Amino acid sequence: MNEALKRKESDERFSVTYRITVYDNRSIDEHARDITVEQSVEIPHDCIPDEIHERGIVGWIESIELVPHTRNQHDVVISYRSDNTAFSIPQFLNVIYGNISLKKGIKIIKLDLTSALLEVFGGPAYGIEGIRALTGTYKRPLACTALKPLGLSTNQLAKMAGEYARGGLDIIKEDHGMADMAYHRFVERVPRFQEAVREANAKTGGNTLFFPMISGGFDEIEQQVALAKSLDIKGILVAPLLVGVDTVRALARKYKLAIMTHPSFTGTHFHDPAHGMTPAVLLGTIFRLIGADISIFINSGGRFAVTEEECQDLAIALRGTLGHIKPSFPCPGGGMRLDRIEAMAQSFGQDTVMLIGGALMQHSRDLEKSASVFMEGIRQHFGEERRAVAH
Amino acid sequence: MNEALKRKESDERFSVTYRITVYDNRSIDEHARDITVEQSVEIPHDCIPDEIHERGIVGWIESIELVPHTRNQHDVVISYRSDNTAFSIPQFLNVIYGNISLKKGIKIIKLDLTSALLEVFGGPAYGIEGIRALTGTYKRPLACTALKPLGLSTNQLAKMAGEYARGGLDIIKEDHGMADMAYHRFVERVPRFQEAVREANAKTGGNTLFFPMISGGFDEIEQQVALAKSLDIKGILVAPLLVGVDTVRALARKYKLAIMTHPSFTGTHFHDPAHGMTPAVLLGTIFRLIGADISIFINSGGRFAVTEEECQDLAIALRGTLGHIKPSFPCPGGGMRLDRIEAMAQSFGQDTVMLIGGALMQHSRDLEKSASVFMEGIRQHFGEERRAVAH
Repeated sequence: MNEALKRKESDERFSVTYRITVYDNRSIDEHARDITVEQSVEIPHDCIPDEIHERGIVGWIESIELVPHTRNQHDVVISYRSDNTAFSIPQFLNVIYGNISLKKGIKIIKLDLTSALLEVFGGPAYGIEGIRALTGTYKRPLACTALKPLGLSTNQLAKMAGEYARGGLDIIKEDHGMADMAYHRFVERVPRFQEAVREANAKTGGNTLFFPMISGGFDEIEQQVALAKSLDIKGILVAPLLVGVDTVRALARKYKLAIMTHPSFTGTHFHDPAHGMTPAVLLGTIFRLIGADISIFINSGGRFAVTEEECQDLAIALRGTLGHIKPSFPCPGGGMRLDRIEAMAQSFGQDTVMLIGGALMQHSRDLEKSASVFMEGIRQHFGEERRAVAH
Repeated sequence: MNEALKRKESDERFSVTYRITVYDNRSIDEHARDITVEQSVEIPHDCIPDEIHERGIVGWIESIELVPHTRNQHDVVISYRSDNTAFSIPQFLNVIYGNISLKKGIKIIKLDLTSALLEVFGGPAYGIEGIRALTGTYKRPLACTALKPLGLSTNQLAKMAGEYARGGLDIIKEDHGMADMAYHRFVERVPRFQEAVREANAKTGGNTLFFPMISGGFDEIEQQVALAKSLDIKGILVAPLLVGVDTVRALARKYKLAIMTHPSFTGTHFHDPAHGMTPAVLLGTIFRLIGADISIFINSGGRFAVTEEECQDLAIALRGTLGHIKPSFPCPGGGMRLDRIEAMAQSFGQDTVMLIGGALMQHSRDLEKSASVFMEGIRQHFGEERRAVAH
């Protein structure tokens, strides 16, 4: 945290665009005004001192626009003083959506942040360029799989990791359900998987990366990250809504590991078009802000309900301009198969991490072969351009 | 964490009751079976080794019952091995609802935990009896207000805290939006508010408690809690979904402060009866498990949409039997006024914390008087029985 920024009483403001669906007889102006108060001073309108209004501590309605082809939906831009967030992630979430999450008909569809907020939150340490430099491959999507299933012996899983790495995958992540169980102790399995991948790389000359899943509690998580770092592991998988959104930001900043975020426990935001946040805002802008170099999301056409348009908006939120913040890789997954490579290539283009999990196990019992088929599928569309990796 | 518990490969199982709404042509059995796999091994059914099934690592369908008066809703009880949770809160959330949060039509309506899980998570340090011992009052609901608005000077807010305390309120909590802003630095304001309440207690012989809001980031939050503890503050306000659910458990266990939880950012779970968790499960069972002595929720009849039945179920989840875990206070709030005291008394009875915020400011500019009216309203229904507080 930048103490100078935190100490300054600032009149800079950032904006949130809320899509508001009105289900009652009150006007859109009243609904918007309620938000400005609920998300700041939270007292009855008639109790707000003039001085508090003058200092801009209550939210301001910047604009209200009817959503085309609707009667009861409006896009309302509300600005808040940047320092109402205390320049911290928990309070930032509190300001943009804390109490109003308990109301109906309010969805966040866009965030416009100030340079001070962007600077404090920081964004990815690597970004697309940095992850490419770690893997040594350019101009094509990266290939990723998940090490699973849970419950297999560490020996078997280490063998699988080696096979996937010899098949040439760029990233092997642990299954997001692989926690510190008695039958899979973190301190025992993670060094083994990293070693299996390192050995395979030594044989093939490749640069496959291994990302362990980090889901320890408050008093364990930092030890897990430190252990990964000590093993020369380059990145981790983490689910911000499980371990705490700011936990990810803080650990990303301190340990400079590549961060792959997982959408576990985020789904309550997405399934209603009139409530929560869009995938673009939560898995895109917010996860990128806290440090996601790669953001996994559920692709359309898999085993979850999500639209192609939502996925495209998310990719834009991850890769588009956001102040000085580096662009991040979208990582479509969630039931992707080898026959979806072409569709993913067309949808998301070269700056994408393609995640195919269980389907590699289904394709062949020879996982090295499955991985090769995956790589071949990507190279057919994009070719290959490798450069040496600095170790 | 109990290492012996964590190390043991256990065949104990805990259960989750999912209310499943089927929107497609697939059978309820298929939907249930999908959950057993999605929330454990997460690979295609045909790739699951027999050994993994035999060890019970995949979820088991324990029962499926049609919800009366519906055609497409079923209550499905699924059990998981306790140690699939790694006996940690982030992974527990991952197992019960991580990936399936991204699907439609799945709501958690009940949790049945094992004694091992209850022991590890621990529950409140004080519970209803312990909080009563801190406040010295028995047989009536406790009265609580929030110190606000944000942006008022520390002097003005400290003066208000003193007035509320002299009026005899049991708990004065900070507004949940009061974070570590430049105009309200935590280290400056919290000692002042505590001192104002202490002075008032010295004058009146009362036992009003002051609870600061704790919403610091991962690398700040423990310092905030430690500062509160050093000031002889007895409890804190914290929003688990802002700072991380396990963060609250860990800090509650380590610092033995009373914990009042705030529902900020939880609302995406509640607004759809076919998605998320019920308030009883999230604000009741889960918040109680991680240590809530008092759980604030939105009462029906306030400024948020919530039903009387949901509130009653939540009170039961907080106060009902849950192994050795202590019962917690339900704390109805969210736009409550002085004229709602009778209704709250009838709905929730004596073991309740009544939260009235802005309405005390509206009632009179003399906050001591407003607080007295609040206390008088409670005593009319329940009388007063005080005992000395051990300091």
